[in-house]
Amino acid sequence: MPQPGTPAFVTAVEGALTRFFTTRRGMVEELGPVFVEAADELELFVLRGGKRTRPAFAWTGWLGAGGDADGPAADAVLTACSALELVQACALIHDDIIDSSRTRRRFPTVHVDFEQRHRDRGWAGDSAHFGASVAILVGDLALAWADDMVHASGLDPAAIARFAPVWASMRTEVLGGQLLDIHGEAGADESVEAALRINRYKTAAYTVERPLHLGAAIADADQGLVDAYRLFGTDIGIAFQLRDDLLGVFGDPAVTGKPSGDDLREGKRTVLLAEALARADEADPAAAKLLRTSIGTELDADEVARLRDVITELGAVDEVERRIAELTEAGLAAIENSTATTSAKERLRAMALAATRRAA
Amino acid sequence: MPQPGTPAFVTAVEGALTRFFTTRRGMVEELGPVFVEAADELELFVLRGGKRTRPAFAWTGWLGAGGDADGPAADAVLTACSALELVQACALIHDDIIDSSRTRRRFPTVHVDFEQRHRDRGWAGDSAHFGASVAILVGDLALAWADDMVHASGLDPAAIARFAPVWASMRTEVLGGQLLDIHGEAGADESVEAALRINRYKTAAYTVERPLHLGAAIADADQGLVDAYRLFGTDIGIAFQLRDDLLGVFGDPAVTGKPSGDDLREGKRTVLLAEALARADEADPAAAKLLRTSIGTELDADEVARLRDVITELGAVDEVERRIAELTEAGLAAIENSTATTSAKERLRAMALAATRRAA
Repeated sequence: MPQPGTPAFVTAVEGALTRFFTTRRGMVEELGPVFVEAADELELFVLRGGKRTRPAFAWTGWLGAGGDADGPAADAVLTACSALELVQACALIHDDIIDSSRTRRRFPTVHVDFEQRHRDRGWAGDSAHFGASVAILVGDLALAWADDMVHASGLDPAAIARFAPVWASMRTEVLGGQLLDIHGEAGADESVEAALRINRYKTAAYTVERPLHLGAAIADADQGLVDAYRLFGTDIGIAFQLRDDLLGVFGDPAVTGKPSGDDLREGKRTVLLAEALARADEADPAAAKLLRTSIGTELDADEVARLRDVITELGAVDEVERRIAELTEAGLAAIENSTATTSAKERLRAMALAATRRAA
Repeated sequence: MPQPGTPAFVTAVEGALTRFFTTRRGMVEELGPVFVEAADELELFVLRGGKRTRPAFAWTGWLGAGGDADGPAADAVLTACSALELVQACALIHDDIIDSSRTRRRFPTVHVDFEQRHRDRGWAGDSAHFGASVAILVGDLALAWADDMVHASGLDPAAIARFAPVWASMRTEVLGGQLLDIHGEAGADESVEAALRINRYKTAAYTVERPLHLGAAIADADQGLVDAYRLFGTDIGIAFQLRDDLLGVFGDPAVTGKPSGDDLREGKRTVLLAEALARADEADPAAAKLLRTSIGTELDADEVARLRDVITELGAVDEVERRIAELTEAGLAAIENSTATTSAKERLRAMALAATRRAA
């Protein structure tokens, strides 16, 4: 089995997903052409690309706790780790409905795709509502199949029993993070704490901490290593999201692929914005007013540039950079002092730096 | 442990659900007040009533395969059977978004409830979209927690391993049934076969066949009994839905609690309607035209009465009654000839007759 972070690892994850979809085919065809269409859409969605970050952390967590990449359990473990991509598919498909997103990775989102099919076929009823309805069910299918993939992975029952409570926590946390997110956007709470909590659950726990923890649970790792993984995962996961927040406002469109200042137009409730608002409320009422009346509206390039200057002058950027540095250092120290294997330490260090120092 | 079909059984199922929600409380509170609100909504929704039909079939399936209601495994089995109510909560919450239903059991549906809270609190954004977004996530939570409840039930790992593939089939089938349903309403296919397929997967497999099968899997029943349960479940489940279709058009509002002829106004794609359309296309073009132009529109009492007469005169009611009788007989024969315990046979016979001969 390949090392995480290599193209061969991505290929192995996609192979496991493809094999799983193949095992569903009989059941899918029995349910008829409508279901075949929905299952095909899900398969295309899942296999359309992505960095396979969550399987990579889970696999690294297992290897770091002594798992043998060439041993007899490796195939089953890789399959169970790959099932994280189906949880992620549910999260993305439902998020795209919630965010009314029209495209993802340059393709129409699932609800938009089925909206279009409804319209093209001249069916009765509201096309947009039909599209959202199908996408709700395709997302549900992804969530149910994620479990099925774990159960059919070949992991032994004892490993599944260790895996189950961590898996349970992870799913509850990501749903919790999504709920906090939509409440944040509705304006329920604009504090730094609220934004950090969304980061913690929607990103850190779900993307790094729990995947590592799942790998450790499969390997039956000792509590010390589990604790170290979880500290690393929380700190690096939050730092990753803080970097994302900075790129969402200051990133170079040529590198990020997104329009400059997109997060400001969307009114995303980031820690960066919360930090800027808190500082403005303290010291600069005019800046506070400008932020509250501009964020989440249509902004031209000059207005984006002005908001960037305001956020920078308030010291919010320095504060977020300080947090990233502090979290990265703490996360790396937790791993350094753990019983993880030397190669897992190196790999996690590289993944941490790639996640927190990137430009896109 | 009580027998299914008794008020004590309903109380026992609700006790198991309440205990499960109590075990989630620590995790829920850690995620913050927004999540507490969502989890409370789900708990209220699940505990607000219902006949607990699916747990009753699963429990009966286990008892009928030799499970001991007073033995050491009984608590764990009842808890695992009760988890079916959480799958059902997901199906209903998401169905209510899909059907744009405003109330369920006299209470606002989940999306309407959160829509109202958003409006009352004067939050930013579209209240209806916010309500639907929260309800998508609350439904996802129910689906994820259904699994967690099975895993935390205390069933031994070998029983869980037997349970898992049946559970997987059941969830895929109910999602398949829902997908077929919304495609049916969009007019993709108005054949009798399509309507029967929706019945098979959305109702029969999910409500009777798979719950019995789950109980048998926990008890490690022999293949002969599994086959008998599945035949019974499919036949009685479809007959149950056919009776429901008749009541939706001909039921007495004083008994059903629903306005008379509601299914005609909603344009529900039932076997009854498909049968009527097929016969009209064959023999009575004027009746076919009337059905196609009236079904799914606002209808007054006279128009409903006229449509009922047309459906009856076409012979569709007799045909559906014939199917119900045939299916009920076949289902009862399968159980009669099985190795199920005598008391399970009696119980299933009573449940079958209650489901197929009811007036509400």
